Amino acid sequence: MTIPGQLTPAPRLLLGPGPSDAHPRVLTAMTTPLLGHLDPQFLDIMTETADMLRQVFVTKNRLTFPVSATGTAGMETCLVNLIEPGDKAVVCSMGYFGNRMIEIAERCRAELTTLKAPWGKVFDLQQLRDTLKAVRPKVLGLVHAETSTGALQPLEEVGKLCREFDVLLVADCVTSLGCTPLKVDEWGIDAAFSCSQKGLGCPPGLAPVTFSDRAVAKLKGRKEKVQSWYLDLTLIESYWGGTDRAYHHTAPISMVYALREGLRIVLEEGLEARWARHLRNHKALKAGLEAIGLSYTADPDCQLPQLNAVRIPDGTDDLACRKRLLSEFGIEIGGGLGDLKGKAWRIGLMGHNSKPSSVLLVLAALETVLAGAGVKVTPGAGVAAAEKMYTG
Amino acid sequence: MTIPGQLTPAPRLLLGPGPSDAHPRVLTAMTTPLLGHLDPQFLDIMTETADMLRQVFVTKNRLTFPVSATGTAGMETCLVNLIEPGDKAVVCSMGYFGNRMIEIAERCRAELTTLKAPWGKVFDLQQLRDTLKAVRPKVLGLVHAETSTGALQPLEEVGKLCREFDVLLVADCVTSLGCTPLKVDEWGIDAAFSCSQKGLGCPPGLAPVTFSDRAVAKLKGRKEKVQSWYLDLTLIESYWGGTDRAYHHTAPISMVYALREGLRIVLEEGLEARWARHLRNHKALKAGLEAIGLSYTADPDCQLPQLNAVRIPDGTDDLACRKRLLSEFGIEIGGGLGDLKGKAWRIGLMGHNSKPSSVLLVLAALETVLAGAGVKVTPGAGVAAAEKMYTG
Repeated sequence: MTIPGQLTPAPRLLLGPGPSDAHPRVLTAMTTPLLGHLDPQFLDIMTETADMLRQVFVTKNRLTFPVSATGTAGMETCLVNLIEPGDKAVVCSMGYFGNRMIEIAERCRAELTTLKAPWGKVFDLQQLRDTLKAVRPKVLGLVHAETSTGALQPLEEVGKLCREFDVLLVADCVTSLGCTPLKVDEWGIDAAFSCSQKGLGCPPGLAPVTFSDRAVAKLKGRKEKVQSWYLDLTLIESYWGGTDRAYHHTAPISMVYALREGLRIVLEEGLEARWARHLRNHKALKAGLEAIGLSYTADPDCQLPQLNAVRIPDGTDDLACRKRLLSEFGIEIGGGLGDLKGKAWRIGLMGHNSKPSSVLLVLAALETVLAGAGVKVTPGAGVAAAEKMYTG
Repeated sequence: MTIPGQLTPAPRLLLGPGPSDAHPRVLTAMTTPLLGHLDPQFLDIMTETADMLRQVFVTKNRLTFPVSATGTAGMETCLVNLIEPGDKAVVCSMGYFGNRMIEIAERCRAELTTLKAPWGKVFDLQQLRDTLKAVRPKVLGLVHAETSTGALQPLEEVGKLCREFDVLLVADCVTSLGCTPLKVDEWGIDAAFSCSQKGLGCPPGLAPVTFSDRAVAKLKGRKEKVQSWYLDLTLIESYWGGTDRAYHHTAPISMVYALREGLRIVLEEGLEARWARHLRNHKALKAGLEAIGLSYTADPDCQLPQLNAVRIPDGTDDLACRKRLLSEFGIEIGGGLGDLKGKAWRIGLMGHNSKPSSVLLVLAALETVLAGAGVKVTPGAGVAAAEKMYTG
């Protein structure tokens, strides 16, 4: 037998695309001894968690709960439940996660139309209108916060458009929930999915989802069974939302504890304050990154505050720089994905980690590492620019 | 905004069908600060965890890792990856979880043959041989430990039989792994799935799986893509097992920490010692339950040590008794599922919780509750019978 030693990793500051550091209160909540998944106390905890999720999604949707798996399973839950084989669907991609949605919609055997935008850009309403008019799909899939490019797709008007064409709007909110304004009911989103490890300050392991009444009607009217049993909402809804609370699968108890605590922290701060904090720290980071000479991959009018994707200076060794950030400063930032592999760094300021100390430290460390890699950087220039944003 | 208070559930002793109590060392491990899912430190932790899983499954299978979801997702992972639409499959059911496997195999669009045994019984080799001979399927699904009836299906000879007919053997080991002998390679199991919250003493949230070379060959030879992207092993294997460790989804970091610690504890005890401990405590519990007058639902020659399903005495109020056990003694036992709903109690002695103190306490509490419910029970009779097993 080979038994490794005790778990003692060197500490990190997680400023990549997620996971972000979990709040210490969340880690403590996970040490709460287990309850059974049908214990009346646990059923109350589920109810409280779902109630708080509704507040954070800004929705009254009854069918709102965390899927017992990570964010991509949330994407799959939305698509397998709302698409039946042969259904027309439009999925828009402006990056890696839009492509993932296309991939999953194909596996649902949708009659699929894809709409692509250059990485770093977003879709405008006219484009979407033209496509819905031409295709007349049942489902439109859009990424609200594209984590690969750092672009924010405006969704405020898309729900209304979808209602005009009787289309269900599915939105990837993995990186937006808890970081940046998201109003499910007001914007007319029919199905949204997210994750636990970014804006909510929890470990990865859960995928919060919410479904409108229109989405539930589509679900109830399905002719074929959902292809995934594990993600079948017609079965899960009675465990999470019904009065009989029928057993479906064993919920990940400790992760639900974590999410409950994470949501408490979000609501204690308040959504508006939380969104403002993410924006404030983004502005400081952006000023600093631009002072160092790094440029954003997303267009200026659609930059995500919580995910800052910047181009790596020409000739700079991506891996060597990130390795030094990690080993010497204990800071993780993300590399590029897909089209931006080796070409971009992704700096996340999410949840708990969106704070001035993260901003100033990552700028100072980046300056040091870039200078060490031979990039011309004025020592302290980025930090100084960020400080001005906080003092100004 | 409505924010519930701090998480302070009344403590429980979880003696149901799972979750079982997590070992305190496991809960502590979950407070370890997060690492990124591609951090070199985390990649090492994944390697260590997979290595320990191989030891616990008693296999050399390269493709061995925990699926990022709960046990049923392990079942779905095995079936969606190994069954292509139109493939002939035989699934055997002798209880609730066999029926679940049938349900999932149908959703994989298998050409399905089902073989059913009365609840509480198991299949014999000749029955299986006759079916394989008649159907000539590509996959045979069997439940090793049927949690709804407490029956243990012998698997020792089934792998050899499957090789004779060139069939892949998929085994549901959700309740057996870490509790009762299971030897994946020696028995010729091609795909096994389990969970974290029973024999491994962790919270629910992960589904360990292992695939033989024959199963991997079937996977590599697929004509159609796996219908679930989230559970697609052709994509996941490079993250868990490959040299490039390509990003697929964000692993549930804290749950992997938990599993790593749970597996360390299993291996520190040793598999043989662990299996013997489960058997010893089962024998004491069984002596006690029978002294109280409760009879097992599974045949005597196939009783699971870790899951003791007994018939509720006629006229006894199932819910009232379990409620009193929970509220007065803090003990959770399970009710019946499916055909046994309202007719059976399921008492689990799993992982950490398989110990004399659990046995003596649950017997004493059951005696009290049954006497209170008007069942004729000699006070102390069950406890006395169990004590004798420990002292004798």
